[in-house]
Amino acid sequence: MTSPPKQDRSRATRQRLLETTIHCLATDGWEVSTVAFIAARSGISRGAVQHHFPTREALILAALEHMFSSRAALLDNLPEPTGTGPERVHAVVTGLVDAIGGELFQAALQVLTAAAADPDLRAVVVPLERHFARGVHTRAVRLLGVDDTDPAVRALIQATLDLARGLALANILTDDTRRRTHVIQAWSTQLAAALS
Amino acid sequence: MTSPPKQDRSRATRQRLLETTIHCLATDGWEVSTVAFIAARSGISRGAVQHHFPTREALILAALEHMFSSRAALLDNLPEPTGTGPERVHAVVTGLVDAIGGELFQAALQVLTAAAADPDLRAVVVPLERHFARGVHTRAVRLLGVDDTDPAVRALIQATLDLARGLALANILTDDTRRRTHVIQAWSTQLAAALS
Repeated sequence: MTSPPKQDRSRATRQRLLETTIHCLATDGWEVSTVAFIAARSGISRGAVQHHFPTREALILAALEHMFSSRAALLDNLPEPTGTGPERVHAVVTGLVDAIGGELFQAALQVLTAAAADPDLRAVVVPLERHFARGVHTRAVRLLGVDDTDPAVRALIQATLDLARGLALANILTDDTRRRTHVIQAWSTQLAAALS
Repeated sequence: MTSPPKQDRSRATRQRLLETTIHCLATDGWEVSTVAFIAARSGISRGAVQHHFPTREALILAALEHMFSSRAALLDNLPEPTGTGPERVHAVVTGLVDAIGGELFQAALQVLTAAAADPDLRAVVVPLERHFARGVHTRAVRLLGVDDTDPAVRALIQATLDLARGLALANILTDDTRRRTHVIQAWSTQLAAALS
């Protein structure tokens, strides 16, 4: 067995670094997640980390992009909803809430919160976040099978995504699963009625 | 004119400290908002700050309580909604979104995000946050003039408060006022239909 080509090893290292960065941000927070800390956690030398990402900002931004692509992939991999009406809407809303929340949200929240108090970081985070938000909106429209050229439909989809972010935030300190189930049910019923 | 009694001066200093802490958290973020930084910003000596709050945690928690009471007061001071139906619901949802968002949210977000990665801080923040969430729910029920012993009504009010938190989060990096107006309108229409 030959060892994998250098380029593949480099790609695998990069991938591992980004995933460790996301995990460190979500678990240990913004302040603790320095290059040295992430390097130690990923078992990669600081020099090798700096070879891939010359600055902490470059590493964090690449991790943010990776997070956003992972979330988009989660949505793309949702099973094609069957049927129409309330069951479909409920399944799609549940899928959206799951894809927007969880560890990816926890990590992204650390970066967004730091960016709220750091104009330089904000300037690079805002376009990424916008691009991601548009991607999620497009996927929500496709999954719901609706036409969002109607401004009322568009606003309802936006509201659903804001609700999903609010639910993700409500889950960061305690397990909010039980309450969230009721909230998703209640909103899905209204959304299905409005879209039908 | 005599100078104010010592107790009043002490109360005024405490109040100024808490308000400066909220402003520093919202503007400068968690990491920067140390006791030394907040003391300098408020023009109060570090010794005097430590007389009121022996630790950074004590100061931050008092600021969090102060934030939560300020938000509750915002809701209590909303004009009694007139009429019934969609206009009332729209006015109440707008009031809730305003009271939950803004600088108070920005400051609270810094604390909640730090608490997400710090079990000791989380242990003291969670009961405070719960107490505040219950207070907002009760005020929303009163303002909407509904009966939340109906589980479906209860879940819709919860959904509205989650939406408000999601909208507050969407506003931390850029001015989201325009989009938010459409979202509140769309949501209020559905909520009014569901509650009537």
